[in-house]
Amino acid sequence: MSAVDDAALSPSALTPAQARERFRGGVVRPTAGWAAGCAQANLLAVPRDWAFEVLLFAQRNPKPCPVLGVLDAGETAGPLLPGGDIRTDVPQYVVYEHGREVARPVDATAYWRDDLVTFLLGCSFTFEDALMAEGIRVAHIDQGVNVPMYRTSRRCEPVGRLSGPLVVSMRPVPADRGADAVRITSRYPAVHGAPVHVGDPAGLGIADLAAPDYGDAVRIAPGEIPVFWACGVTPQAAVVESRPPFAISHAPGHMLVTDARDSSYQVP
Amino acid sequence: MSAVDDAALSPSALTPAQARERFRGGVVRPTAGWAAGCAQANLLAVPRDWAFEVLLFAQRNPKPCPVLGVLDAGETAGPLLPGGDIRTDVPQYVVYEHGREVARPVDATAYWRDDLVTFLLGCSFTFEDALMAEGIRVAHIDQGVNVPMYRTSRRCEPVGRLSGPLVVSMRPVPADRGADAVRITSRYPAVHGAPVHVGDPAGLGIADLAAPDYGDAVRIAPGEIPVFWACGVTPQAAVVESRPPFAISHAPGHMLVTDARDSSYQVP
Repeated sequence: MSAVDDAALSPSALTPAQARERFRGGVVRPTAGWAAGCAQANLLAVPRDWAFEVLLFAQRNPKPCPVLGVLDAGETAGPLLPGGDIRTDVPQYVVYEHGREVARPVDATAYWRDDLVTFLLGCSFTFEDALMAEGIRVAHIDQGVNVPMYRTSRRCEPVGRLSGPLVVSMRPVPADRGADAVRITSRYPAVHGAPVHVGDPAGLGIADLAAPDYGDAVRIAPGEIPVFWACGVTPQAAVVESRPPFAISHAPGHMLVTDARDSSYQVP
Repeated sequence: MSAVDDAALSPSALTPAQARERFRGGVVRPTAGWAAGCAQANLLAVPRDWAFEVLLFAQRNPKPCPVLGVLDAGETAGPLLPGGDIRTDVPQYVVYEHGREVARPVDATAYWRDDLVTFLLGCSFTFEDALMAEGIRVAHIDQGVNVPMYRTSRRCEPVGRLSGPLVVSMRPVPADRGADAVRITSRYPAVHGAPVHVGDPAGLGIADLAAPDYGDAVRIAPGEIPVFWACGVTPQAAVVESRPPFAISHAPGHMLVTDARDSSYQVP
């Protein structure tokens, strides 16, 4: 379907291929709510020399870094984005050199290198449909902003040259639905699963919920508690701390929309 | 507890540390039924230069290669074997050079190299307790032999230089308990999970159940069907086909007995 044909469709009604086509065409938007029913993915591409450490870091830290797929050096498409191009199909990228952000392009082609191995990690946007289907509203979607994300005082299990803090996303949930939010998201272990922390931001070393480290603050209504899920931005925090010579990630909240169905990551 | 103190204990009553101590001391036995309630693991150690491909092979073939833990180059112990030594604590090893078996030592210390990265993969022995707890007998335990394993005509998803066939283990199950066997083992995805095939050996390219490629044949009683689970010997078949310069594995059926509880790999 061409951009003209699908122009009238709301983001949630797009197919994954249509969503990726829009982003390839230059649309820059957080992707929460896009292509309803389809899984979204975090991206981290590193030189081949760092790939084993990243994959082992993911294996040892499966809550923040659930691996959905890996594109080996030289591969730019795969089963998660058939007919796509990982260098262009994400709304916005962050380019790192020695752990420092050097660019935030909407098309990463000019920065891409043949030796980059790309990791696609599960994203908690994937279970938001399931939360909404059971009547739990998602604040950042309702409020039209990016999900708030925070670096925590909790450390990831390090691997070789890679270390860093756990990053979490936060969604306010009415206190009487807190147990439901845990139950529902527990069924999606491949996309961060159950929360890592419920309430008590200070327990994660978060001083001020209104000042997220990534994304946007959301309003928390009376009677709501902040619930924290492990976040796929965690490897970006590890890149900043560990300073590999080069890396490319997605911009937080600006995910790859994949062809995988949310339901394929659901356990009974 | 010393070897003298625990000498009277049956293998199933041993702690994992006691079991590893026996194997370190030279006992050579298939480990099915040892240290009841504790997970067992397949072993594959490869040079660092091959480690990324092995880990990605595991990620792309999670049914035969569920990663429970990885010891990086230079590490010989870890949370799965606290106080242990991966070079001595498995009952028997196989040493491969360029894909050919060159030795089958009970102590691998003399063969070990500082650049070896060790992968510990889930083993279906882990769910045998759960099968037996629901009254499904395990033939190779009853018959006192090693589990039968077969190379199949099904191919694994290849990665770089690594390719090979799926290897399966087989347990005969009474036809009226076939559904139960599926239900019970489905709850253990980290240790191969649900069967890959039920009945019909020819559909997997298995010509003769009485001639397994690894382990021992078991008797199949009237009314029983052969049920096939993905097997952690699969990476050994990939080593034989793909010929890395060097590799060390466990001898099929002779697993690492770990400190992890079976139940920790169970999903609801």
